Amino acid sequence: MKETALCPRLAKAMDLIGKRWTALIIYQLLSGPQRFNAIESALPISGRLLSERLKELEKEGVVERKVYSEVPVRVEYSLTPKGRSLEGAVREIEKWAQNWT
Amino acid sequence: MKETALCPRLAKAMDLIGKRWTALIIYQLLSGPQRFNAIESALPISGRLLSERLKELEKEGVVERKVYSEVPVRVEYSLTPKGRSLEGAVREIEKWAQNWT
Repeated sequence: MKETALCPRLAKAMDLIGKRWTALIIYQLLSGPQRFNAIESALPISGRLLSERLKELEKEGVVERKVYSEVPVRVEYSLTPKGRSLEGAVREIEKWAQNWT
Repeated sequence: MKETALCPRLAKAMDLIGKRWTALIIYQLLSGPQRFNAIESALPISGRLLSERLKELEKEGVVERKVYSEVPVRVEYSLTPKGRSLEGAVREIEKWAQNWT
């Protein structure tokens, strides 16, 4: 691979955000912490793939998973500060989508 | 697929921008029209894949390909208005990348 004049961090960021459904999951969580089922019913995505993406986003520090010791147990997903700071990018893409697609 | 509460246009926009290297090609063309070799040398991408992505972006109306009838012939790629209006999203992603990756 040639040495890129471009910032490899932009490439890494795009690899993260660009994955299918990732931006939509982030978009969904912008409205606050939600349970798995709520996210799943809002997106045309399988439970298996959603679970996979949420694990990746947790590992990347973009999403946080909170377990509430209630009966039955309650699990919620929310954006971390790193995740919330993607709002600007997601809103810009939303604006572009409304104008151009 | 469940009917999504989310805007399918956002999903389509992400499918376009999210493809590997697409955002970097757009980022590269923000600095103006360029020839194939200039784009290729700035990105760690194979000529074959770059050619494929440029064709897709041309089809989507994001990139324009101009052929100048000179000897030898000169071909330049540039962003269309639709492509240029992705600048906001790409700059936001760049800002996020600088802070968080």
